[in-house]
Amino acid sequence: MEFAELIKTSKVDHVVLSRPFLQPVKGTLCITSHHLLLSSRAGEKEELWLLIRNIDAIEKSVQNLGGYHSIKFVNQQNGDRFAGSSGIITVKCKDLCVMYLEIPGMEECLNIARSIEALSSLESTSHMYPFFYRPKKLNLQEGWDLFTPEQQFTKLSIHTDNWRLSYVNKDFTVCTTYPDAVIVHKSIDDTALTTVARFRQGGRFPVFSYYHKKNGMVIMRSSQPLTGANGKRCKEDECFLAAVLQADKKGYIIDTRSIQAAHQAKVKGGGFESKANYQNWKRLHRPIDRGRVLQESLSKLVDACNDQSNSIDRWLSKLEASKWLSHVKTILTTACLAAQCVDREGAAVLIHGSEGRDSTLQLTSLAQIILDPDCRSISGFQALIEREWLQAGHPIQLRCASSAYSHAKLKQEAPVFLIFLDCCWQMSCQFPCSFEFNEYFLITLFEHAYASCFGTFLCNTEKERFILNVKEKTISIWAWMNSPCERKQYLNPLYENNSLTIWPSVAPQSLQLWQGLFLRWNRSTEHLNEAWEQINQIMEHSKTKSSPTNTELPVPEEDYARD
Amino acid sequence: MEFAELIKTSKVDHVVLSRPFLQPVKGTLCITSHHLLLSSRAGEKEELWLLIRNIDAIEKSVQNLGGYHSIKFVNQQNGDRFAGSSGIITVKCKDLCVMYLEIPGMEECLNIARSIEALSSLESTSHMYPFFYRPKKLNLQEGWDLFTPEQQFTKLSIHTDNWRLSYVNKDFTVCTTYPDAVIVHKSIDDTALTTVARFRQGGRFPVFSYYHKKNGMVIMRSSQPLTGANGKRCKEDECFLAAVLQADKKGYIIDTRSIQAAHQAKVKGGGFESKANYQNWKRLHRPIDRGRVLQESLSKLVDACNDQSNSIDRWLSKLEASKWLSHVKTILTTACLAAQCVDREGAAVLIHGSEGRDSTLQLTSLAQIILDPDCRSISGFQALIEREWLQAGHPIQLRCASSAYSHAKLKQEAPVFLIFLDCCWQMSCQFPCSFEFNEYFLITLFEHAYASCFGTFLCNTEKERFILNVKEKTISIWAWMNSPCERKQYLNPLYENNSLTIWPSVAPQSLQLWQGLFLRWNRSTEHLNEAWEQINQIMEHSKTKSSPTNTELPVPEEDYARD
Repeated sequence: MEFAELIKTSKVDHVVLSRPFLQPVKGTLCITSHHLLLSSRAGEKEELWLLIRNIDAIEKSVQNLGGYHSIKFVNQQNGDRFAGSSGIITVKCKDLCVMYLEIPGMEECLNIARSIEALSSLESTSHMYPFFYRPKKLNLQEGWDLFTPEQQFTKLSIHTDNWRLSYVNKDFTVCTTYPDAVIVHKSIDDTALTTVARFRQGGRFPVFSYYHKKNGMVIMRSSQPLTGANGKRCKEDECFLAAVLQADKKGYIIDTRSIQAAHQAKVKGGGFESKANYQNWKRLHRPIDRGRVLQESLSKLVDACNDQSNSIDRWLSKLEASKWLSHVKTILTTACLAAQCVDREGAAVLIHGSEGRDSTLQLTSLAQIILDPDCRSISGFQALIEREWLQAGHPIQLRCASSAYSHAKLKQEAPVFLIFLDCCWQMSCQFPCSFEFNEYFLITLFEHAYASCFGTFLCNTEKERFILNVKEKTISIWAWMNSPCERKQYLNPLYENNSLTIWPSVAPQSLQLWQGLFLRWNRSTEHLNEAWEQINQIMEHSKTKSSPTNTELPVPEEDYARD
Repeated sequence: MEFAELIKTSKVDHVVLSRPFLQPVKGTLCITSHHLLLSSRAGEKEELWLLIRNIDAIEKSVQNLGGYHSIKFVNQQNGDRFAGSSGIITVKCKDLCVMYLEIPGMEECLNIARSIEALSSLESTSHMYPFFYRPKKLNLQEGWDLFTPEQQFTKLSIHTDNWRLSYVNKDFTVCTTYPDAVIVHKSIDDTALTTVARFRQGGRFPVFSYYHKKNGMVIMRSSQPLTGANGKRCKEDECFLAAVLQADKKGYIIDTRSIQAAHQAKVKGGGFESKANYQNWKRLHRPIDRGRVLQESLSKLVDACNDQSNSIDRWLSKLEASKWLSHVKTILTTACLAAQCVDREGAAVLIHGSEGRDSTLQLTSLAQIILDPDCRSISGFQALIEREWLQAGHPIQLRCASSAYSHAKLKQEAPVFLIFLDCCWQMSCQFPCSFEFNEYFLITLFEHAYASCFGTFLCNTEKERFILNVKEKTISIWAWMNSPCERKQYLNPLYENNSLTIWPSVAPQSLQLWQGLFLRWNRSTEHLNEAWEQINQIMEHSKTKSSPTNTELPVPEEDYARD
């Protein structure tokens, strides 16, 4: 496929770009295979450098003497009617920004719009920008080998020898959504694992997720057991879970579905672990919304945030109606429950819903942030995202295919990862000294999950990444984020490493709207940026005074993220 | 009157004090004339040192084997029925804290409750604690002469000679709610002022409030003109206002009542400036709620904040229903309007409602914070409070007589000053580098406005302060707040003096609940305090490195606020 075929018009002069809280700029608009560029004729720098994959939706309208009209139904023929008028393209981005392009001439406007639509609807992953992005300062190898199952296992081995690294899935045949290496209990061999995999949806047999050093308890995750309506059993599955519980210990299975939903799942071949067959495991049902419900919640929230109406009542009603904070609360509450089972009850925990690729991962990752101070460091958080989201098979490319504005009613999109980031942000507000990273770090991850020049958030499973050679042909976001000049932007000046668990308050009054993300484009950031610069200056000041603890080599500042 | 007569029981042993997020403490409870003390027998320090004036409401209940019962209707006789039980006194403070005292023996409990009720309902100002408070480190003279009308006039004289200092009110006979000296236009003599005073409610003739250096425009304030139903006129009043507008200049009268309310006021002898008689003055009606409406809003807000229910929906509904943020928005919006008239329209502004002692002062003071960088410094803000609130005759003792919990339906209470502080906080969030002080500074002012060991917020007018010798017999809060070890707690580490006006966003999404004040007791502050300590350490670090700009003498740290 040639990108050139999709680009109806590659260059238009006298285009006016309007963005919130910035002066409009006039310049030349160019469309390349992956970017929308606007170069102001005044200066030399590009005023806009927008990844087309970041575009969530576009709307066309025509501006003439009579004002604006939607041109949803304008076609080539009656396009002539608007000759001499300007066309306005409203560009709604996945990072929630909304901008306007005023394009002289309807014909040009429609061509630009068609080009954007064609380019942004390309579905082939190997045609995406990360496969073409080759910055000088970053190389293809860097970052990909930072967080492997092998390294995770090596760390675990320091504390316990109850677990082993299995390569039963080395060619992704046992479970297509697991990585090639997984950590399982030493009592179960690979043959038994294969049997268990057949008894769990999508082959997602229970795997190790987290080891709590304080008491040796673990968190595991899986998919639902395929008991079906007839209550099918799997000896190996039962033995595996029994073996995890040493003598006298108990375990909790946190099922992210309601009891009703779990029972209904039986009809379709799914099910849950019965009390009788899984002794000493207590099942807790904590329903967590997923899929369409979350996606609609995000759309409603962003709609509320963009509402220009002037009434506080209306704003708070819409915020409430979006249910976003209710979702945040439910997930954070359930993650606390999982963490409590481990830390306070001294019990093992197995988490699953149906597939175990969405809410399950929200819980395992948030529980680790609560329990494990390492996960609150920059590199620990990156490791957590690698192992609990990417390697664990969260279908991130499908889930983040569209954001709050898209009208395309795909069934796979859901802000599962964004809610996880929001929960992290809530905790960072309540524990301002406990996180090495700041809000900007989380916002950057949000942006790149939805549209990126890096390969990290491409594909839905490790298998897909393997097939497309993502780790050989694209650059890892960690290589970029960990470069010294980038990394320092993500540092929380108040961070003090401490070895404690953090128990967030989930009282409604304690949970706030993440303004830095959701209102980012709806307010002037001039004064907040000024504050941030001030903070950095103070930190530089106090750092130069104290003895250097950072042995990283200085690297010349450069914008790595642009090619 | 002897305080001793009111104290039925001055000392009870084995009392248990419970406060949110703190371990319960057992100790001896003492009641003194002005304080509730609890000394734990374990340590030497007092665990509780509560000004009785800080108590907004108390509730009694009885704890026995059957649980808790309200003892609203328990009297001395059937008090015996509860012999052996513990009584619980719920103490609800004006600073919004709620605490519980478990007192062994119903008789003792009732006596303690009666004593608190008697002591906290004392109305005589000269019996209040500031008249008895004599700390070693502070003296009576300090702080009272920091911000006088004379000093304000001296500063004004640098820029213009259009205004003069009048002592027409030197014995408070022309206007009982004005200070002895006021700044008025040079064109009007004291005889004419006396005439104008008779034409304005409560004698509050138009006085100078703010001079905008950039264009020489002023803000003035007054009460409503007493035109009455027959449209009475006052030549001197009209001439005064005409003289303020130099040739070709226009003025805006911002009336804080709706047009309807302003018309209705005529029936009761009040009124407004008609277009015909006040040429070049344009009247803008911007209704601002006051009195009972605000007080109910505060009660509802605090009720929502204390709601233990677990639902986000309910929380947001109650927050919305309280209307608190709507009031904040309206007042901030109108203050912006006043500031715009001065700064952008180059016009003079006169602000009044009916009396000109509440919403009028909210607007004149907030407009100054927007326009004048000096008001955003610590001493400038103190000066603002002195001249625009205390000297201007805001009835602060009446307004702050009770806070959110009191059931006493007095008509005079209203959180007028608290909303002003909230508006300041909203601005400080939007302009994090523009205020010399931090949130704690504003919270401290809130606390002391409602209950204080200092005399600053006593009385409702300068006349009352004069009669009671407040400035000779009590200590000024500024003496304490400006002592070096106190002052450093109020500093905003990000402050950078700049000479710009600040235009706050009043979009609903930009206004937030002031968590630091309203949720202060509903959340654990451990981690926020830790963050604050961390910030102070960083600041100390960066300060010791940079050259000292602060020439204040070091003073040993000591808690000045406790006697």
